[in-house]
Amino acid sequence: MTAASTIRPRASAEILVSAIADLKATFGTRLSTAVAVREHHGRDVTSHEGLPDAVVFAQSTEEVSRAVTICAAHGVPMVAFGTGTSLEGHIAALHGGISIDVSQMNAVLEVNAEDLDCLVQAGVTRKQLNEYVRHDGLMFPIDPGADASLGGMIATGASGTNAVRYGTMRENVLGLTVVLADGRVVRTGGRARKSSAGYDLTRLMVGSEGTLGIVTEARLRLRGIPESIAAAVCSFESLEGAVMTVIQTIQMGIPIARIELLDEVQIDAVNRYSKLDYPVLPTLFLEFHGTANWTEEQAAIVGELAGDNGGHGFQWTMQAEERARLWQARHDAFYAAKSLRVGSMAWVTDVCVPISRLAECILETKREILERGILAPIVGHVGDGNFHLTCLLDPDSEEEWAAVRALNDSMVSRALAMGGTCTGEHGIGYGKIDLLAKEHGDALATMRAIKQALDPQGLMNPGKIIRL
Amino acid sequence: MTAASTIRPRASAEILVSAIADLKATFGTRLSTAVAVREHHGRDVTSHEGLPDAVVFAQSTEEVSRAVTICAAHGVPMVAFGTGTSLEGHIAALHGGISIDVSQMNAVLEVNAEDLDCLVQAGVTRKQLNEYVRHDGLMFPIDPGADASLGGMIATGASGTNAVRYGTMRENVLGLTVVLADGRVVRTGGRARKSSAGYDLTRLMVGSEGTLGIVTEARLRLRGIPESIAAAVCSFESLEGAVMTVIQTIQMGIPIARIELLDEVQIDAVNRYSKLDYPVLPTLFLEFHGTANWTEEQAAIVGELAGDNGGHGFQWTMQAEERARLWQARHDAFYAAKSLRVGSMAWVTDVCVPISRLAECILETKREILERGILAPIVGHVGDGNFHLTCLLDPDSEEEWAAVRALNDSMVSRALAMGGTCTGEHGIGYGKIDLLAKEHGDALATMRAIKQALDPQGLMNPGKIIRL
Repeated sequence: MTAASTIRPRASAEILVSAIADLKATFGTRLSTAVAVREHHGRDVTSHEGLPDAVVFAQSTEEVSRAVTICAAHGVPMVAFGTGTSLEGHIAALHGGISIDVSQMNAVLEVNAEDLDCLVQAGVTRKQLNEYVRHDGLMFPIDPGADASLGGMIATGASGTNAVRYGTMRENVLGLTVVLADGRVVRTGGRARKSSAGYDLTRLMVGSEGTLGIVTEARLRLRGIPESIAAAVCSFESLEGAVMTVIQTIQMGIPIARIELLDEVQIDAVNRYSKLDYPVLPTLFLEFHGTANWTEEQAAIVGELAGDNGGHGFQWTMQAEERARLWQARHDAFYAAKSLRVGSMAWVTDVCVPISRLAECILETKREILERGILAPIVGHVGDGNFHLTCLLDPDSEEEWAAVRALNDSMVSRALAMGGTCTGEHGIGYGKIDLLAKEHGDALATMRAIKQALDPQGLMNPGKIIRL
Repeated sequence: MTAASTIRPRASAEILVSAIADLKATFGTRLSTAVAVREHHGRDVTSHEGLPDAVVFAQSTEEVSRAVTICAAHGVPMVAFGTGTSLEGHIAALHGGISIDVSQMNAVLEVNAEDLDCLVQAGVTRKQLNEYVRHDGLMFPIDPGADASLGGMIATGASGTNAVRYGTMRENVLGLTVVLADGRVVRTGGRARKSSAGYDLTRLMVGSEGTLGIVTEARLRLRGIPESIAAAVCSFESLEGAVMTVIQTIQMGIPIARIELLDEVQIDAVNRYSKLDYPVLPTLFLEFHGTANWTEEQAAIVGELAGDNGGHGFQWTMQAEERARLWQARHDAFYAAKSLRVGSMAWVTDVCVPISRLAECILETKREILERGILAPIVGHVGDGNFHLTCLLDPDSEEEWAAVRALNDSMVSRALAMGGTCTGEHGIGYGKIDLLAKEHGDALATMRAIKQALDPQGLMNPGKIIRL
């Protein structure tokens, strides 16, 4: 799929040659125009595509600033790149230009154990950070599945399995270093846990997908690794029973760390892929954090709720090995789904609704999946009301593409009608650009005014979030 | 104190007469130009002042929109007003114009117990909301002390005693209805617990102090009232011991609901005012929420930490009456402080620092208080690293004013040098407008660009947060 957007034409060949020459002077061999490199930087796993004209590999905030200054001077678009694991075409250079790769900015600059914060460069990945702080008994809980860069996770407003307990990126970024559209470097936020000092530029940048600035450093909140962790699996006779268990757990204020739903199609896929034998039923994967006593008490309470709601076989374990196997199976859900149909492409989408509407939203979506004859397992971060479809399609079949697009549109319409959002955590990119307009209506003009104020030339990741 | 700011001149008498006539046609007797009403709307408890030329009492979003449209058409400044309990001059009409009072917009429009959210008009106060949802076993935990309007709490980015557990307004607003500078009404956010759909206009409005728009409705997160609540008081030999107890509690991941520090001067005031007999030492007031077992376990763990850090007499109680007495004493801290010096004015300020620097920041500040001969008890939401001075001064003494201002400036400089912020929860208003520039440097230009994009005429609460 390529975007229909036609904001501004590509820069002319002449301008590009001149911009690339200027960049070459700064980046030398860390500038590439090789097709393979450009393809790697312009294509994501869900078939969104737009190749940049060149890629630069920046190693510092100053270098990002220099690259941006050069692009701005020549009127050439720029797109930030971390690990390329985003899902809605965020990294596609729809109007060509320069991909600014920050993956070499991968230093953890500070860890403050007493204050539970750290300072990282944007290219540090979440697993790298967790590895780094583990020896201090600390963790960074935000877990979107992919081992994304923290800069990218900030740009998309990522969340994932632990968000029900620890929040999303929004709640876990204290401050940022950002290169603005004209190359100026600003620092937002600070080290204080809270502040009422002026406009919240930090939160404005979180989820702005590189359209307002490029994040080069971030100060993040860390957490202590819990003394005790228990995990559990429970199968339900009905999806409603599983969701009711979630609702009651949240209502009781149980600070559950993870509560993930896999529908029977996804469980079947997981069983085949990971050689497991869970009952082929709607299933919750759960995790509890706390002291040993408190973890046990939480598991007992939720186990009882599950039983009341038609849950079977609820058993919790504190054994690290069993826990690891369980979450590996959950994290492999994407590959498990993909293996259900050999040679297929896995196209994913997400919505998020108030949890009182979650069962209804999922069931109606499943009915539509059946009607349209699509194979699409469902997994969800159900504590937040967020769920994902993984549509398995033949990428060469225009008919299948049409069916999947229609399914996505109507699922989003359903979610919006229920007071939900067109994306809980994947972001807009250009894949959902029309759906954002549907969701936010008049507020889009306000977003556009901000975009124009901070990027008057429209050069920062053009064609994403809003059309100018 | 009046502001030195000179953004734009007041509207001429002629223009004002014409604007007020137009407003009169809409608001009738709900428009007032009486001096007493204007004084009530233009003066806060900490002596900031600027009388509006008229006050309108709006009863709906549409009426706020009409008032804004009229002001915009005539080029007349407008200032939103809730309960007038802000502390940095937020409500002062520095350039005259119209105060738009939303206190009559005090309906709770929706409560969704399953989703733990509600929809309120901006004039609903936090106590009113809590009263309303109590029968459903729900609460809204943000507690800045004053019974502020929720619209005002959003505008200042308020927090208070429960923020260490439940976050600030920033983390508890799901969406907003906002009247923009030209009278257009937009809705931000939604009912989903999380969203990655576009720029986070909700968080941009939180803490924007009515300078980007006027909040008329808000969708807020609610929580279940905990099954069990325990409270405790503990005196410490040293302030360092008290703060170390806080640091260790947070590091261990104990989800403490409240952890408040009162220095020995404040405890002395509380004893006298509330007829209590706490040891005159640095003291922590604490609260734990959870199941009965978990509450008891949290209290036991923190009690042990306190003992290790020179804490004495740590005792916890689940008795509602005792708890109420304890927190009444804490909430009366302001009046207790004020009664230390008969006829004085109580001038308050707050900063927030990383908690590893908190003891040092407070102790240096206390040394300076002594040196300058000021009476200024300290209370703090220390779980967040946030503390307040209540300076008791003779409002007619220019000398005392100068000393208090110098103390405030140097405390903020100290907090900034430690990586903190010039205000953890009171906001900028015009009282801290120069300190914001000191804190955010180059980022101020970005804030200014946003302000100009959303309020090009500069009519929304002019002279607050940033000078144009």
